Amino acid sequence: MDILKLLKPNRICIVGASEKVGFGGDTCRNVMHYMQPDRYFFVNPKYPSVFGVKCYPSMSDVPQAFDLAVICTPMGTVEDLLREAHKCGAGAAIVYASGYKETGTADGIAAQNSLKALCEELGMALLGPNCAGYVNYIDMVYPFAFIAEERDRRGSVGFVSQSGQLCLSMMENPASTFSYSISVGNCAVTSVEDFVDFLVDDEDTRVLAIYLEGLSEPQRFVNALRRAAQQKKPVVILKAGRSEKGSRVAASHTGSLAGSDSAYDALFEKFGVIRVNDLEELIYTAEAFATLKKLPESSGVASMNLSGGETGICADVGSLCGISFPDFEAETVEALRKILPFYAHPANPLDMTATLSYDIEGFASALRIVMQDPNVSLISIGYTLLENITDPAIHYMAKAIEIVSAEENSVPMLMLPFAGNTRNSEYLELLRKCGVPVLPPPLYGFRIIQHICKFAEFDISKVDTSSAIPTRSRRAERIALSEHEGKLLFASRGIRVPEEEIALSCDHAVEIAKRIGFPVVLKIMSPQIQHKTEVKGVELNLRDETAVRLAYDRIMQNVNKLRPDAYIEGILVQRMAPIGTEVIVGINNDPQLGPCVLVGMGGVFVEVFRDVQIRLAPVSETEALDMLSQLKADKLLAGYRGYPPCDREALAKLIVAVSEIAVEYKDSLVELDINPVFVYEKGVCAVDALIVFDECPQTDRGLVT
Amino acid sequence: MDILKLLKPNRICIVGASEKVGFGGDTCRNVMHYMQPDRYFFVNPKYPSVFGVKCYPSMSDVPQAFDLAVICTPMGTVEDLLREAHKCGAGAAIVYASGYKETGTADGIAAQNSLKALCEELGMALLGPNCAGYVNYIDMVYPFAFIAEERDRRGSVGFVSQSGQLCLSMMENPASTFSYSISVGNCAVTSVEDFVDFLVDDEDTRVLAIYLEGLSEPQRFVNALRRAAQQKKPVVILKAGRSEKGSRVAASHTGSLAGSDSAYDALFEKFGVIRVNDLEELIYTAEAFATLKKLPESSGVASMNLSGGETGICADVGSLCGISFPDFEAETVEALRKILPFYAHPANPLDMTATLSYDIEGFASALRIVMQDPNVSLISIGYTLLENITDPAIHYMAKAIEIVSAEENSVPMLMLPFAGNTRNSEYLELLRKCGVPVLPPPLYGFRIIQHICKFAEFDISKVDTSSAIPTRSRRAERIALSEHEGKLLFASRGIRVPEEEIALSCDHAVEIAKRIGFPVVLKIMSPQIQHKTEVKGVELNLRDETAVRLAYDRIMQNVNKLRPDAYIEGILVQRMAPIGTEVIVGINNDPQLGPCVLVGMGGVFVEVFRDVQIRLAPVSETEALDMLSQLKADKLLAGYRGYPPCDREALAKLIVAVSEIAVEYKDSLVELDINPVFVYEKGVCAVDALIVFDECPQTDRGLVT
Repeated sequence: MDILKLLKPNRICIVGASEKVGFGGDTCRNVMHYMQPDRYFFVNPKYPSVFGVKCYPSMSDVPQAFDLAVICTPMGTVEDLLREAHKCGAGAAIVYASGYKETGTADGIAAQNSLKALCEELGMALLGPNCAGYVNYIDMVYPFAFIAEERDRRGSVGFVSQSGQLCLSMMENPASTFSYSISVGNCAVTSVEDFVDFLVDDEDTRVLAIYLEGLSEPQRFVNALRRAAQQKKPVVILKAGRSEKGSRVAASHTGSLAGSDSAYDALFEKFGVIRVNDLEELIYTAEAFATLKKLPESSGVASMNLSGGETGICADVGSLCGISFPDFEAETVEALRKILPFYAHPANPLDMTATLSYDIEGFASALRIVMQDPNVSLISIGYTLLENITDPAIHYMAKAIEIVSAEENSVPMLMLPFAGNTRNSEYLELLRKCGVPVLPPPLYGFRIIQHICKFAEFDISKVDTSSAIPTRSRRAERIALSEHEGKLLFASRGIRVPEEEIALSCDHAVEIAKRIGFPVVLKIMSPQIQHKTEVKGVELNLRDETAVRLAYDRIMQNVNKLRPDAYIEGILVQRMAPIGTEVIVGINNDPQLGPCVLVGMGGVFVEVFRDVQIRLAPVSETEALDMLSQLKADKLLAGYRGYPPCDREALAKLIVAVSEIAVEYKDSLVELDINPVFVYEKGVCAVDALIVFDECPQTDRGLVT
Repeated sequence: MDILKLLKPNRICIVGASEKVGFGGDTCRNVMHYMQPDRYFFVNPKYPSVFGVKCYPSMSDVPQAFDLAVICTPMGTVEDLLREAHKCGAGAAIVYASGYKETGTADGIAAQNSLKALCEELGMALLGPNCAGYVNYIDMVYPFAFIAEERDRRGSVGFVSQSGQLCLSMMENPASTFSYSISVGNCAVTSVEDFVDFLVDDEDTRVLAIYLEGLSEPQRFVNALRRAAQQKKPVVILKAGRSEKGSRVAASHTGSLAGSDSAYDALFEKFGVIRVNDLEELIYTAEAFATLKKLPESSGVASMNLSGGETGICADVGSLCGISFPDFEAETVEALRKILPFYAHPANPLDMTATLSYDIEGFASALRIVMQDPNVSLISIGYTLLENITDPAIHYMAKAIEIVSAEENSVPMLMLPFAGNTRNSEYLELLRKCGVPVLPPPLYGFRIIQHICKFAEFDISKVDTSSAIPTRSRRAERIALSEHEGKLLFASRGIRVPEEEIALSCDHAVEIAKRIGFPVVLKIMSPQIQHKTEVKGVELNLRDETAVRLAYDRIMQNVNKLRPDAYIEGILVQRMAPIGTEVIVGINNDPQLGPCVLVGMGGVFVEVFRDVQIRLAPVSETEALDMLSQLKADKLLAGYRGYPPCDREALAKLIVAVSEIAVEYKDSLVELDINPVFVYEKGVCAVDALIVFDECPQTDRGLVT
């Protein structure tokens, strides 16, 4: 199939053309309104003409070749029409009709499978079913099933949506512009991945916006994100299912198999994808990236406002959103002092006072002074641009912005209003042309500024971009390695573990203990016993031979009494590791996206505060260090209030090594946990090991048997 | 002074009337546009008429009495004009002019003091200086210095703002309606507190909205908040200075003395004040309260939407904002199943599917079914109401909402759009009349819903509403009680402390230890030694006489060596308390708002995660328990993963007792810390005590000497 036949067709044919309200009628209206008359044909045996345009009885009667058939008729008619379209040379089709897989019924699923098989047989690129069509704003192709207010929307945001309603809502927003806007529906044939692939490589698309419920080909998606990151093309994703209830909604909506939401976070973090929470944030984040002529060079934001109240709001909400407003250099303060009224207090965020808004030269000078500050890479101009202008200040300010934005070394600027409102379209357009996006009010606006800063600083070259998507699906079996086997695997990959050996008798245990050195720990080893402490199968801090002998006997008695059924492999004799700072390192192997490595400080930090960082494996050492620095508990790792400073580099190396093990066993690993890793001032030690596979893993090193 | 002369004047006189752009011209335009012609007079010796209205040369020439003089002229003319106004019988004035205290200069401060003294002498209620005036929408009095778009803004939100710009921005928002909108400026004479007092008692005002930078009369403010809470009148406050940078901005803006921001949080929590982050949230929170005909009865929210994508956004963003979407009862699900399409999945949040939006009866039925669910007290209808309607769905939905909202037992409804936009004014008005507010998009919208739910559940009867504002200002001295003195104070107020006594010799220490029981702790007691461990002045877990003797000698040697200068009062012999869960309880005595009691789990919980709760003292036991339940660490107090369950009631009683001590010493207490309180399965014990006063406190019980 050729997706260009779908997205960039020579001509299109509307099958089921009509004047009635509904798919057929609305598509005809859209097509007539936005497309050249020689680019479309109407087909409907019932009418000789539709809205005054000739209407052919069937596709075969259409006098010219067309690439795309837009099928506006009900489900029952679709397959015959597809065959006819194919006969007429069409390589692509859109099916709006619903009643397929989204119903969750056996009939619906069967119908979708049949549709899919037919398209594969015919080699047709089909969009849908249960979709709203798409718009190609570059070549003005408009096979879209809903009417939105007339407006020039041509821009550079490529939008792919698994919800037709959100597609329409995005078009209805006065700020939105697009290269393409695509409602993918059920993705029976063409998938989200197909369109993302297309848009990442499309030169007319500067920013991708995606509403995502689930993936069908994660590997292609990951590849596309990698290419986007390499080109530094922003990808903004609204992914449903962040909350438990949201996840349930997404699953029932299109029936797509969603990977765990945290795996998506792990993926997005890796490739610098900007994750947003709702449609408003999606619209304005994408549009801000599309409007800015260049990205800021770092994350230093200056906030410039016309009143004290507004300046305070910027300071507070900006800080809440994680914006750092760097202090101005002394030269900047000095220069501002010269042009601001005597009662102004030059600082960042800056209250310029209202006087500056009536003074083109003054306002331009203030912008230039702040732009020259080496700590500032982005300027947020606080001003509520209204639809109906009652205050002439905007005339002067816009002129100053226009002048300064055209100057060399101009720093990117944004306009941040304090209340939501439709904006004056004339000034909106003027500012857009200057590369100055107008954001929504602060709670959204500063989040968007934060997204821009984070993306500007994102550097794909520091990321291990190889991917480890599982190539087979998860089996039901669960095979846990013993703690000792797990540690042998760790040790073979350069991860430090305590010295240990399995003792088969009490004398043997004493012999091992003497060899590896006291104090030691004894632990029962049995495939039937997962939780050793529950059967009193662990004895700590044994300092001499007598202690080992007594402990050995106690463990055997306890286990014989509490689990007489268990097969005893022996007793693990382990050199007791000195206590270090407890860290948890683990792997969740997502069935769709593959292994994600997790790190957090042990105990309540993970369990109560959910203070963890997750990245798609494998990770580079830089990524691992970045994960640590994003933990709230990183303060403690750095040495805080009685906590000794921790060897973060050694911990990062361990995280890298664990992520590599996970990649090696990506197809069979279910989970892996080291709880705890002891982190010392120098070095680390993996004190425990839990590794579960879904089959007996075969390795070339024979470590796992 | 009589504030009614200012806010509800019989007639007003504009002094400095003019046709030019500026204070005089804009005020004249506003007054002529909105007020009855017999309610205002223009005065300016330069013009015989202004905009065709007769203009008098001076106030004495005005033929009728007027209560309010609106002085639009520069600073230098103000005092003479005030005297003249007073002579003419005016009891109130507005001064727009700036150049006063806000400049931060000695001249400016002197001018403001002089203005204040004059108004006190004349008994005049003065608004300003450096203000934008006010609007009384109830009686249509419009002495306001800026022009906003013409619109009927009469409503029931009373707005008081310490920023004129935010006052204007609020008026410029299409959603805002007001009873009063007041720009208070520098508050030389009338204060924020005067207007809050007025609005709390004003029958035309159903909701207060306040932009606050600082207070001058905290006690009156607290009293007003108490009255508002008792009437269950919502008070929504945008308080500047949540962040460090924001706090600096607020301080430099009006020069008002801001209490610490956390003290404001402590105050707001106590009285159910809704604190918002920016203007957008202020506008729509206030307007939502004003529009709703009744408050929800509990915090169970149902989200009803027309598409899966939008339902997912509601589930995710709602959860993020702390909304609980209770599961529907089986009957609700069953009833919904009957009216929804077969492929819908009835759950909360609910995707009704788009079909219901074209069906008045169907939509009304769905609303009624959800309203009958006992877990649902508030319904959020997800729909993006656009300015220019392209989709007729709103016609049907609005009709259904209109019908259902008028029915008995109707549950409050809100409309939540997914993207920001100006809304269709016809439907906005229709919905408003039905008591259905239209919110901003989800990140704001669900925060507002959360505010409404929290306020609905707020119950002032469970709160200790007595207040403890300090009556004198803080002194520079710092007098710390010894640990032993602190504990004697605690013990006298029923707080359990370890048994302890001061030993004056080694034998004495042994004698005490034997009497109170081993194990004991020894601690050096010296007014010069604050940090006892730093001089090795503490010995723990002493189990017998020998241990006590050795420890006594070691401490004395250490202290003699490390602090030979220190005066030794003795050595404290303390029964060693069994280890419990460590909790910190403390008091910050805010110079403006008085003592605030703080609680958090010891160690990193407070220091790294800032997991603390703060309330204005005194607190009731219910409040103390509520504070505990709002800690993230409350999970641990409840007994979690190896943490023993804690006696939360005993801890709450301790918090109450500490808050009462703080109230007793509100004028002299600087800080109080118990770090840690040990909390046991049964009971608590205050193991340490740090209490600092700014003078030697005198008590009737003679405990503190």
